[in-house]
Amino acid sequence: MVPQTTLVLTSQVQEDGKIVAALTEMPLPAPAEHEVVIAVEAAPINPSDLGLLFSSARIEDAVFAPGRVEAPLSPAGLAALSGRLGDVLPVGNEGAGTVIAAGSGAAAQALLGKRVATFAGGMYARHRVVPVASCLVLPEGASAKDGAAAFVNPLTALGFVETLRAVGGKGIVHTAAASNLGQMLVRLCAADGVALVNVVRKPEQAALLKDLGAAHVVDSSSPTFREDLRQAIEATGADTVFDAIGGGPLLGTILSTMEQVGRTAAGAYSRYGSTAKKRAYVYGMLDTGPITLPRDIGFVWDVSGWLLSPVMEALGPDVRARMQARVGQDLTTLFASAYKAQVPLTHILDEAVVRDFTRRATGAKYLILPGA
Amino acid sequence: MVPQTTLVLTSQVQEDGKIVAALTEMPLPAPAEHEVVIAVEAAPINPSDLGLLFSSARIEDAVFAPGRVEAPLSPAGLAALSGRLGDVLPVGNEGAGTVIAAGSGAAAQALLGKRVATFAGGMYARHRVVPVASCLVLPEGASAKDGAAAFVNPLTALGFVETLRAVGGKGIVHTAAASNLGQMLVRLCAADGVALVNVVRKPEQAALLKDLGAAHVVDSSSPTFREDLRQAIEATGADTVFDAIGGGPLLGTILSTMEQVGRTAAGAYSRYGSTAKKRAYVYGMLDTGPITLPRDIGFVWDVSGWLLSPVMEALGPDVRARMQARVGQDLTTLFASAYKAQVPLTHILDEAVVRDFTRRATGAKYLILPGA
Repeated sequence: MVPQTTLVLTSQVQEDGKIVAALTEMPLPAPAEHEVVIAVEAAPINPSDLGLLFSSARIEDAVFAPGRVEAPLSPAGLAALSGRLGDVLPVGNEGAGTVIAAGSGAAAQALLGKRVATFAGGMYARHRVVPVASCLVLPEGASAKDGAAAFVNPLTALGFVETLRAVGGKGIVHTAAASNLGQMLVRLCAADGVALVNVVRKPEQAALLKDLGAAHVVDSSSPTFREDLRQAIEATGADTVFDAIGGGPLLGTILSTMEQVGRTAAGAYSRYGSTAKKRAYVYGMLDTGPITLPRDIGFVWDVSGWLLSPVMEALGPDVRARMQARVGQDLTTLFASAYKAQVPLTHILDEAVVRDFTRRATGAKYLILPGA
Repeated sequence: MVPQTTLVLTSQVQEDGKIVAALTEMPLPAPAEHEVVIAVEAAPINPSDLGLLFSSARIEDAVFAPGRVEAPLSPAGLAALSGRLGDVLPVGNEGAGTVIAAGSGAAAQALLGKRVATFAGGMYARHRVVPVASCLVLPEGASAKDGAAAFVNPLTALGFVETLRAVGGKGIVHTAAASNLGQMLVRLCAADGVALVNVVRKPEQAALLKDLGAAHVVDSSSPTFREDLRQAIEATGADTVFDAIGGGPLLGTILSTMEQVGRTAAGAYSRYGSTAKKRAYVYGMLDTGPITLPRDIGFVWDVSGWLLSPVMEALGPDVRARMQARVGQDLTTLFASAYKAQVPLTHILDEAVVRDFTRRATGAKYLILPGA
């Protein structure tokens, strides 16, 4: 029942400047004492997975063969990946499936036959051996599809709210807010009473979030954007940005607007700006250009990189346990993901499929079905 | 003995886009219960004072009259100062002198005849009424010149070291390190065993700091700057930047170099970069352009504005008391300031004087002598 080898989607950076994504038959090791073997049934393609799979390679110039894609990197793109040159890396941060074999340990044996989700990496595979400790047993009745994305987006959304609480922030401004994660954050903040300003870049994205019940949605393509943003910040007291973009002018504009609101509230002039604390956490790089902070934001501000794993580590075991319990509790409601398409693993490198899922467009999330 | 009016240097932004610095005879109020009247003897011109006095006005186009300078602002410069339009603001953050009158309170009476320093503002004046709580009694034998700069630079240097301790940083990289503050920091870090990398922009500045005994000095004008910086960061483990500049590429280069050192130390590749924490505190704006952070710094970084007053507030009363006691203890050694010129208040708006002290050049610090 447990095969000796299994099909795995891997990514390799070659010295000739190409990145190669390939479906590869690889040995499947026997599980150690505290490990289990999962027959993977569903795994989502998150932006972070695309980063590992294709990095900055030019998909428009890719060469497609059955089960294999070669895409060229720029010299700078290649140089940035020198640390992984030649390594054959399995892809897929998270996924869900059924435990079909287990190591001798009691905790491992207890998972036999259970449907679990995991964040152990290498999940774009028919089978995967993972530590018991990385497994979340799915609630009764939840499908593998329900549990496939139980980690990255739910923990990120919860991590935003926990970070806001930890620093005593009053409310969130979220950019690229129409994303799968953004929609999840709208539901979570509504459920938990957290003030949220959603920044999107198209009218149809604004409509989507308003339909979800979002109270504050501002569209950066609108001629009244700056004033709309000011009003939303004033109305909510939002002082903490979670930014998926990084480069470009948007982050600076939001911080400047927060400072403008802070100065108006302060009344008296200070040439050092307002004493209202402004924070931003940059968690993505949809624009890979430099982060640019204008100097009309005073001196009371803090901008940080935000990465799920070290943040969860810093939040501590109690908060981590609270976050994980919450995901289990609200998996099929607050934390439900929607997919544009579900594709068998064997077709994931088909040309039309790759061209579509690498567009990183809103509402174009893919689910891989390795068991299909 | 206490006059009814006194000579004060003021700054006013006019609606016609000019900033006017003027020596003005103003009423001197009687001291309230917990106030004293200081006959000001010495007050330094810090970069922050220049910001209040002339902001971004073009001194090269200024019009000089006796005791009065009018300098034009750009439209953007004027707009940035809309909050102080028309206000006549006394200038001079800090200074020292002798208490010549006091309110009825016991603490105020106890200061009569004492030489004190204060950080109460408006110190470019013959006399100044200040709260007792703002006064630091100078040590026996210290002159007003010794005590004139007892606050801004000493507390800033101590504040850097206390901030480093509070966040658990391993060492400091300081930019514009040849400044008066930078020289003070070299002496303080040597005395307290704090690792310090000094970044300067000219060979003669590097020589100056090496003569002071600085162990690590790197010159950004050198062709080997990037490699020199890397070696200094590697040797010291410095992970915390205090940056006086803000705009331009230097801050990003330092953070990138810290990340490069962190990745080398980590060994294994991670596309999210190293987990080595990098911090930067931007405390000045010698370059008023936007702060620019490249994305080759991973996700574990934190860049903040740093302003003395809110930072001291956040450090708490125990740390504040420790800092103030330290200034008193080491006022004439670690925290001594050097001045290029000492000028009576009545001559501070002379054309040659203004043109010189507004150059903001290293080693060109001025001391105003209101009693002369």
